[in-house]
Amino acid sequence: MDDRGHDVAPAVETTADEIAAMEIRGAATIADAAAEALAIQAQRSDADRPDAFERQLRAAAKALYETRPTAVSLPNALRYVLAGMDGETVAKLRASIVDRAGEFRRDLDRAQSKLGSVGANRLRDGDVVMTHCHSTDALACLEAAVEDGTEIEAIVKETRPRMQGHITAGQLREWGVPVTVIVDGAARRYLDRADHVLVGADSIAADGSVINKIGTSGLAVLARERGVPVTVAAQTIKLHPDTMTGHTVEIERRDEREVLDEEARAAITDGVDGVDDGLTAENPAFDVTPPRYVDAIVTEHGQFPPETIVTLMRELFGETVDEPWEL
Amino acid sequence: MDDRGHDVAPAVETTADEIAAMEIRGAATIADAAAEALAIQAQRSDADRPDAFERQLRAAAKALYETRPTAVSLPNALRYVLAGMDGETVAKLRASIVDRAGEFRRDLDRAQSKLGSVGANRLRDGDVVMTHCHSTDALACLEAAVEDGTEIEAIVKETRPRMQGHITAGQLREWGVPVTVIVDGAARRYLDRADHVLVGADSIAADGSVINKIGTSGLAVLARERGVPVTVAAQTIKLHPDTMTGHTVEIERRDEREVLDEEARAAITDGVDGVDDGLTAENPAFDVTPPRYVDAIVTEHGQFPPETIVTLMRELFGETVDEPWEL
Amino acid sequence: MDDRGHDVAPAVETTADEIAAMEIRGAATIADAAAEALAIQAQRSDADRPDAFERQLRAAAKALYETRPTAVSLPNALRYVLAGMDGETVAKLRASIVDRAGEFRRDLDRAQSKLGSVGANRLRDGDVVMTHCHSTDALACLEAAVEDGTEIEAIVKETRPRMQGHITAGQLREWGVPVTVIVDGAARRYLDRADHVLVGADSIAADGSVINKIGTSGLAVLARERGVPVTVAAQTIKLHPDTMTGHTVEIERRDEREVLDEEARAAITDGVDGVDDGLTAENPAFDVTPPRYVDAIVTEHGQFPPETIVTLMRELFGETVDEPWEL
Amino acid sequence: MDDRGHDVAPAVETTADEIAAMEIRGAATIADAAAEALAIQAQRSDADRPDAFERQLRAAAKALYETRPTAVSLPNALRYVLAGMDGETVAKLRASIVDRAGEFRRDLDRAQSKLGSVGANRLRDGDVVMTHCHSTDALACLEAAVEDGTEIEAIVKETRPRMQGHITAGQLREWGVPVTVIVDGAARRYLDRADHVLVGADSIAADGSVINKIGTSGLAVLARERGVPVTVAAQTIKLHPDTMTGHTVEIERRDEREVLDEEARAAITDGVDGVDDGLTAENPAFDVTPPRYVDAIVTEHGQFPPETIVTLMRELFGETVDEPWEL
Amino acid sequence: MDDRGHDVAPAVETTADEIAAMEIRGAATIADAAAEALAIQAQRSDADRPDAFERQLRAAAKALYETRPTAVSLPNALRYVLAGMDGETVAKLRASIVDRAGEFRRDLDRAQSKLGSVGANRLRDGDVVMTHCHSTDALACLEAAVEDGTEIEAIVKETRPRMQGHITAGQLREWGVPVTVIVDGAARRYLDRADHVLVGADSIAADGSVINKIGTSGLAVLARERGVPVTVAAQTIKLHPDTMTGHTVEIERRDEREVLDEEARAAITDGVDGVDDGLTAENPAFDVTPPRYVDAIVTEHGQFPPETIVTLMRELFGETVDEPWEL
Amino acid sequence: MDDRGHDVAPAVETTADEIAAMEIRGAATIADAAAEALAIQAQRSDADRPDAFERQLRAAAKALYETRPTAVSLPNALRYVLAGMDGETVAKLRASIVDRAGEFRRDLDRAQSKLGSVGANRLRDGDVVMTHCHSTDALACLEAAVEDGTEIEAIVKETRPRMQGHITAGQLREWGVPVTVIVDGAARRYLDRADHVLVGADSIAADGSVINKIGTSGLAVLARERGVPVTVAAQTIKLHPDTMTGHTVEIERRDEREVLDEEARAAITDGVDGVDDGLTAENPAFDVTPPRYVDAIVTEHGQFPPETIVTLMRELFGETVDEPWEL
Repeated sequence: MDDRGHDVAPAVETTADEIAAMEIRGAATIADAAAEALAIQAQRSDADRPDAFERQLRAAAKALYETRPTAVSLPNALRYVLAGMDGETVAKLRASIVDRAGEFRRDLDRAQSKLGSVGANRLRDGDVVMTHCHSTDALACLEAAVEDGTEIEAIVKETRPRMQGHITAGQLREWGVPVTVIVDGAARRYLDRADHVLVGADSIAADGSVINKIGTSGLAVLARERGVPVTVAAQTIKLHPDTMTGHTVEIERRDEREVLDEEARAAITDGVDGVDDGLTAENPAFDVTPPRYVDAIVTEHGQFPPETIVTLMRELFGETVDEPWEL
Repeated sequence: MDDRGHDVAPAVETTADEIAAMEIRGAATIADAAAEALAIQAQRSDADRPDAFERQLRAAAKALYETRPTAVSLPNALRYVLAGMDGETVAKLRASIVDRAGEFRRDLDRAQSKLGSVGANRLRDGDVVMTHCHSTDALACLEAAVEDGTEIEAIVKETRPRMQGHITAGQLREWGVPVTVIVDGAARRYLDRADHVLVGADSIAADGSVINKIGTSGLAVLARERGVPVTVAAQTIKLHPDTMTGHTVEIERRDEREVLDEEARAAITDGVDGVDDGLTAENPAFDVTPPRYVDAIVTEHGQFPPETIVTLMRELFGETVDEPWEL
Repeated sequence: MDDRGHDVAPAVETTADEIAAMEIRGAATIADAAAEALAIQAQRSDADRPDAFERQLRAAAKALYETRPTAVSLPNALRYVLAGMDGETVAKLRASIVDRAGEFRRDLDRAQSKLGSVGANRLRDGDVVMTHCHSTDALACLEAAVEDGTEIEAIVKETRPRMQGHITAGQLREWGVPVTVIVDGAARRYLDRADHVLVGADSIAADGSVINKIGTSGLAVLARERGVPVTVAAQTIKLHPDTMTGHTVEIERRDEREVLDEEARAAITDGVDGVDDGLTAENPAFDVTPPRYVDAIVTEHGQFPPETIVTLMRELFGETVDEPWEL
Repeated sequence: MDDRGHDVAPAVETTADEIAAMEIRGAATIADAAAEALAIQAQRSDADRPDAFERQLRAAAKALYETRPTAVSLPNALRYVLAGMDGETVAKLRASIVDRAGEFRRDLDRAQSKLGSVGANRLRDGDVVMTHCHSTDALACLEAAVEDGTEIEAIVKETRPRMQGHITAGQLREWGVPVTVIVDGAARRYLDRADHVLVGADSIAADGSVINKIGTSGLAVLARERGVPVTVAAQTIKLHPDTMTGHTVEIERRDEREVLDEEARAAITDGVDGVDDGLTAENPAFDVTPPRYVDAIVTEHGQFPPETIVTLMRELFGETVDEPWEL
Repeated sequence: MDDRGHDVAPAVETTADEIAAMEIRGAATIADAAAEALAIQAQRSDADRPDAFERQLRAAAKALYETRPTAVSLPNALRYVLAGMDGETVAKLRASIVDRAGEFRRDLDRAQSKLGSVGANRLRDGDVVMTHCHSTDALACLEAAVEDGTEIEAIVKETRPRMQGHITAGQLREWGVPVTVIVDGAARRYLDRADHVLVGADSIAADGSVINKIGTSGLAVLARERGVPVTVAAQTIKLHPDTMTGHTVEIERRDEREVLDEEARAAITDGVDGVDDGLTAENPAFDVTPPRYVDAIVTEHGQFPPETIVTLMRELFGETVDEPWEL
Repeated sequence: MDDRGHDVAPAVETTADEIAAMEIRGAATIADAAAEALAIQAQRSDADRPDAFERQLRAAAKALYETRPTAVSLPNALRYVLAGMDGETVAKLRASIVDRAGEFRRDLDRAQSKLGSVGANRLRDGDVVMTHCHSTDALACLEAAVEDGTEIEAIVKETRPRMQGHITAGQLREWGVPVTVIVDGAARRYLDRADHVLVGADSIAADGSVINKIGTSGLAVLARERGVPVTVAAQTIKLHPDTMTGHTVEIERRDEREVLDEEARAAITDGVDGVDDGLTAENPAFDVTPPRYVDAIVTEHGQFPPETIVTLMRELFGETVDEPWEL
C-alpha cells in the first residue's frame, strides 16, 4: 500500500525504487520503465470496481512520479498512459492501460530511429554539420544520413568543460564521417563553412525554448548571424510538461572544479595573500535558447517550428496539470 | 652596407638580427627598438650630403622592416620616425630623426598607462566586466580603475585552448578584483550579469575590424545581442598599416595539438580501423570582429568608434604605401 | 419575437439591451451574461421540435451578438456555447446548452486566477517587472507571485494620456510590491534593470499580434533590443475571432483633449493669428504588437508562443465564420 | 589675482561669477561670454613678457572653467581660443587671442543659422518630421526649411514630464507648420507617417553617442525599426570634450515630483498603511543614444555620421586633456 | 490490374495517364482529378469484401501518386480522401470515399474564393500592395478587395526572367486597379510606398518556409527591413506533405536561355577566344523564404502565422507517411 | 568676358561648352577637362594684379561649374585646384594653379589603377564576387586581382532594365574570369555562394550613403543578411560635395519605356477599355544605400569605412560651400 492506502503492486515499487536510486536512468529508460510499471500494475490489480481500479492506477502513477519529479520524461510517460485509461469494466480498463502502455513503449523504442530519418532528410550531399556536446538524438540524424549514403562532414565543438565533443567525434569517425574538432570559441569563424548546426535537447519548453548543454544558445545566436540554420533533435519525451503552466526549468549547477581544477586555482591565486574567497567558477550544465534562434525541432512525429511544439505537447500529453495522477 | 650598397650602422644590424631571431619580441618592444635603431643610425651616419643621409635612413628602415614584415608595430615605428625627417642640412636632418625617435619612444612608454586611464574612465562603481584571453592593454584599463578606487568585478572567460584567462584572473586577483571564471561556452548566459565586455587586440584594420584572439568575434556578437557594450583596448602601434591598402590580415595557425592532444586523438579514433586521416583539428590564433559589433576602441590618444580608426592611422603614420622606406 | 420571427426569450432581450446600453460591460462580464442568456433561452424555449429549438437558439445568439459586434468576448461566448449544442431531442438539446453554458461560465470564473498562476510561475525571486497601463490579467500574475512568496519589484510606466499606471502602482503597493514610477519615455533606460515586461491585451489576433494600450508595441520593440522577455497576460475570451478570417482590428480613437487639453492648446496657439486649424492631437487607444516581439502569451490554458494562439482559437471557438449564429 | 597668484582681469572674474551664479546660462551664451572674457583678459593684460602673458591667459581660462566644470560648451570655448594663442611678442600674442576669440564668437553667432540650413537641406517637400522635446538647434532646421519654402508637417511628441513638446508645437504653429501632438507612447504608431526624426542634443560624446532628453534613445531605436532616418541637430559647442578620454556623461536627476506629484502619490498610496517608502519615481533628464541608431549629426560645419564626430572634436578643440588651461 | 495485381478502374488509369502526360496540370486541377478518380474507383469497385475494397483504393491511390510524385497537391488529395475511408461493409466504405471525395472537391472549388475573402480583409482603403510574379491565389485576394469596394493600388515587380508580372498587371488593369510596374531591383526603393507585400506560393513546408518564385525571399527580407508586412496567399493543397518528415523541396532548374539568350551570350563572349565554357547562367525557378520573414499565410481555412502551418497540415492530411496509400 | 565682366579665356569657354553639350562626359573626363581649363586660364591670364588674377580664376571656375551643376566630379576638380591657389604675385599664383591642376590630373590618371590595387588586396584565392551593373572602378579591382594571379569567380547580376551586367560579364570573360549570370531576383539565393559583393558608385554622400544603380541598396541589405561583406569601389571625384551641407542627391528618372516597352504595355492593357492612364512604370536610375550596409569604400587613397568618408571629403576638397568659386 502506498501512503494514501492504495494498493500499489510490488513491481511498481521496485521500479520506483530503482528510478529513485538512479539505477534506472536516462530519459528513454525511465519513460519505458514507468510505462511498463503501469501496465504491470494494471495486470496485477485486484480492484473489483472500476473506480477502485482507477484510483489504484493514479496512486501508482503518483508513486512513480514522486521518485524524480524533475525527470522530464517520467510525467510524460505516466500522463500518456493514463490518458488512454478507458472502459466501463475493470477488464476493459485493464486492457486499455496495457494496450496504451504497449503503444507508448513501442513508439518510444522506434522514436530515435524515426527522428533520425526525419533529421537525415534535412541534409544534402556535401553538407557540413556543426555539432555541440554529445546527443544520441542528434547523432541518430547523422547516422541515418550516413546510412542513406549522404556525404556529410562534421565540425565538432569540443564542449568544455567535459569535452563531450570528443564522444561525438569518436562516434562519427566510426561511421566514417570526416571530423574537424574546434574549441568552442572558434564557432563563429567556422560557421562560414557550416551548412547546418545540429544539437540535441535536455528538454523543450512550451514557449519553444530549448534547454540544452551550456553553449547552445550562444551557438544558435551566432548561427543566425552567419545565416546557418539550427536544427534541434529531440524525442517528444523531452517536451517539458511543467512549462505549459509557465514553470521555468531549473538549471543544474555542476561541480565548479570541472571549470577550474585545483591546480589552476592554485596558480591563479598564487600572488594573493591568504585564502582567496574572491575567486569563483560557475558551472551551469545548460542554457536556454529562445525559439527565434531555432529553425526546426526534429521529433519522431516529424519536424516542427519551435513555436508550434506546445501544440504537440498538448496533443500527446494533454493540457497540463501539475500532478499527472490527477489527469 | 646593406644589399643596396647603403651604409647601415652596425647597431641597426644588431637590432635587426635580434628582431629576426625573436630575441626582441612583443609589439611595444619591437617598436621601441626600431625607433632607437633609427636614432642611432642618424647619430652615427657618416653621410655628408642631405640626400645621402636620407638614403641611409631609408635603407636602415628597410633593413629593419624586412626582419619581420608581419609585425604590425614595426612599420608603424619606422614610418612615424621617418615622417619627421626634415631639414636642409645633415645636422638638421639628424636632429630631426633623433628628436622624432625620442618622441615616439616617450609616447610609447606612456601609451599603455594613458590608454588605461581612458579605459578606466568608461567604468563605474559596481560594474561587472567580462574579459576574453589575456591582454596587457585591457588589464591596464582595469588596473587604472582599481587605482581610481572604482569597485569592479570580472567575469573571466578561460579562453581555450591556451587558458590565458587564468593569467588574467591571476592578475586581477592580485589587484583584489573579485573574479568568476567561466568556460567560453557560458558567455551568453553570463552576459546578463555583465556591464562591459573588454578585450585587447592583436591588430586593428583600416576598415575598423579588430583582429584578436579566437572567440572575440563571437563574444562581440553575443554582447550586442544581450545589450552589453564592447570596448577594445589597443595602443596605436597595433593599427595595421597594410590594411589601409586593402590587405587582409593573415591569421596565424597554431599547433593543432593545443586543441586535440594525442591522448584525446587516440580516444576518439579508438573505434576506427588503421590510421585515421579523417580527424583533424583547427587551431587559428585569431578571428576578425567587424566594427559594427564594437562600441569603442580605447587608445593612448583617447577613445574612438572603430569606423574612425583609419583617420587616426593616417594622422599618425601617413597615407600608407606598401614599403615604409619609400615614404 | 426577433426581427426574423423567432421567439427570443424576454430575458435574452433584457441582457441584449443591457449590453447595448453598456450597463453590462467589461470583456468577462459581457461573456458571462451572454452565456447565461443562452442557457435561459434554452430553459425557457417552447420549441417542440429540435430544428425549431436550434433556430431559436441561433436567433438568440444573433440578437445578442448584434448589440455590440466589436466586443471580442461576446462572439467567443456565443460560439463556445452553440458549439456544444448536441442531441436528438429538444430535451437533450436543452440540456446540452445549459451544461455548456455552465461550463463556459465556470471556466470564465476561474480563468483570471488560473492564468495568474501560470504567469507567476514565470517569475523568480528578485525579478523586476516593467508594466504598461493597467490590466487585471497582468496584475493577476503579480498577485499570484506575491501570494507564492516570490520577491518581486515593479517599474511602472505612467501610461499617458490617462495615467492608468497609477492604478497599477496603487494595487501593487497594496500588495507590498516596491514600485518605481517612470514616464513612458524612460522605458529604454530602465529596461536595463528589468527582468520582464508584463502587459495585458485588449485583444489578440489570429496572426499572433497583440492589440493593447498605445505604447505597448514600442515597449516590446525596446524590450527585445535590451534583451528583456515580453509576457502578455490574456484570458482566451480576448482572442479575436474575426481576425481568423483576416479582418483587422479597428483601433478606437479617444477624445483628443486627453492629449491636449484646452489650456495647453491655447498656450500653443498663442502666437497664431485667428482660429488654428493646423494644430491637432491624435489619441488612438491601442496599438498592434507583432508576434515577433512577444515571448509568451499567458492564458488560463497555459502559456503559448504568440504564433500558436490561432490553434487555441480554433480549438476553443471553431474555425471562424463571420456570424456566430451560423455555426 | 587668482589662487595661483596670477593676475586675472576683473572683467574675467565678473564673467566667472555670473556663470557660477547661472546669470549667464545656456550653452551658447556661456561659450560666448567665456571667449569674450579671454579677449578682455588679453587686452587688459599687463604682462611684459610672453611667458607671463601665456600664464595669465591660462589662469584666466582655468578660473572660468572652474565655475561650471560640467558645462560642455565652456571648455570648448576656452580650448578653442587658447589653441590660437601664437606669437613671439606680447603684442602678437594679444592680437592672436583677440582675433581667435572674435572668430569663435562670430562663428558661434552664425552657428545655429548655418546648421539650420544644413538640416533644412535634408528635408523635401511633403516631408513629415517627428520631434522630441524642444531644441532650438532642431527648430532652426525646420525654420530654415519653412523659409526655403519647403512644405513640411510635424508630429510633435509631448515629452513628459515637462511637456516641452508644447513649446515646439507653439513655435511651429507660429511658422505655419501643421502640427499633430501625440503622447510619447504613440511614437511607434506614428513613425509610419514620418519621413524623419529630428532632435537636438544636450551633448555628444566622442564615441558618437548622443546625450539628449529622456526618451530620445527609445525613439531612435523605434525609428530604425520602422525605417525612418534620425537626424540630430547640434552646434559643435555641444561636443563633449571629456568623453574623448573615456569619461562618461553624468545624467542629471530632476525632481521626482515632476513624474509623480503629491496628489498622484497620495492616490497611489491610499490603500497602504502608514508612510509608504516603497513608492519612488525616477526622473533622469537625459538618456544616451548609441551612434548606430543615428543617421546624421547636423552641425554648423556640415553633417556627419555620428561615428566621425570625434574627428571634428579633435580638429576644433585639439586632442583632449583633462584641464583646458594646460593646453 | 496494376503491377501489384490489384484491379484499378480504367478511369483511374486514364486520369493517371493524363496527369503523367501533363494533360492534367496545375495544382488544383490535379488534386480535383485525383479525388474524382478515387471516387470513380470506389463506385466501380467489384470488391466483395471490405479488405479487398481497401486494398483496391490504396492501389489506385498509389498508381495516381506515382504519376507525378513531385506534384504537391496530388498526395494531399489522395491522403485527404483515403483518410475518410470508414465503414464495416463494402457499401459503407464506398459511400465514405464518394462522400469524402465530393467534400474535397467542393472545398477545393471554393478554396480560392474563400482565401480571397480572407486576404481582402487584411487590406484597407488606400493601401498599396507590392506583388511578385503571377499567382491566382494572390490575385484572388486583390479581386475580392476590389469587389468589396476597397480602393487599392499595386506596385508590380516585373519578375525576370519570364516577366509574369505583366500578367498580374494586365489582370489588375482589367479590374481597374492602378498599377505601377518596376524592375525587380527597384523593390527596396518602392517598399517605402507599399503597405503590403502579397505573393503566392508554389508550396509551403512544415517548418513554415515558403517556396515561391525566385526573388520572393529577397523581397521578404527587404520588406521586413522597410517595415512592410508580407502576406502569402496559398490554398492548403500547396502544403508540402513530405516536408513534415524533414524532406527538403527540390528546386526546379529552368532553361538558362531564359536568363541569357543566344544573342546576349554571343555579345558577352565576343572578346573571348574559341568556345566559351566559362560563361554560365543559373535559372532556378524558386527560392525559399524562412518563416521569420512572413507575417501571415492566407488559406481557405483562414490566416495563419507560418510557424503554425504544420498544425494545419497535420489536421487536414494526417501525420505524414512517405507513401499516401499506406495511410 | 563672362557675365560678371571677368575675362575668361576662350579655351575655358570651349571646355565649358563641350561639357554643357555633353561632348565631354564621364566623371573622370569632366574633372580632367575642368582642371586643365583652370590651368589654361592661369597660363593665359592677362591679370596684372593678384586680386584680379584670383577673380579671373574664380570666374572661370564659376563658368565651368554652371555648365553641369549636377556633375559631382566638376566642383570637386574646381575646388581642389582653387584650394591650391597661393602666392603674393601673379606669377606665383599662376604657377600654383598650374602645379595644382597638374597634380590633380596626374592623381586622377592613376586613381583607378590605385584603387584597383586596393580592392584587389581584399580578395583571396578562390573568392566568388557578386557584381551589380557595370562600373569601371569595380572592374579595376577585379582586373588587378587577375593580374595578381588571384583565382576569382564572378556572379554577375544582369541589372535590369539596361542589362549592364552583360558588359561586366563580357569584360570579365576577356580576362578569363569564370562568370555566372543571374537575374536580379536570384541575388539572395546566390549570396550563399558569394564571398564578396563588389559595386561601384555614382556618388557618395557625406553621411556615408552610396548612390548607385537601382538595386544596389537591396543587394547590400541582402548581403548583410547572408553575412557577405559589401565593398564599394569609387574614386574620390565621386564624393558628393553638396551633401556635406545636407543636400540630398536628386535621383535621375529615365525613360519608363526601358521598363515597359510599347509591346509589353499593349499586352497588359489589352483587356482595358480605351486609353489606359492607370498603368505607369517607374524607372529611377539609382538608389541610396545607407552606410550601415557597406563594409568598405575603396578609393585611390585606400579603403575607408563609409562613415569616415566625410573626413576624406573635407581633407581633399575643403569644408564645403555651396559655390566652388567662393572658396
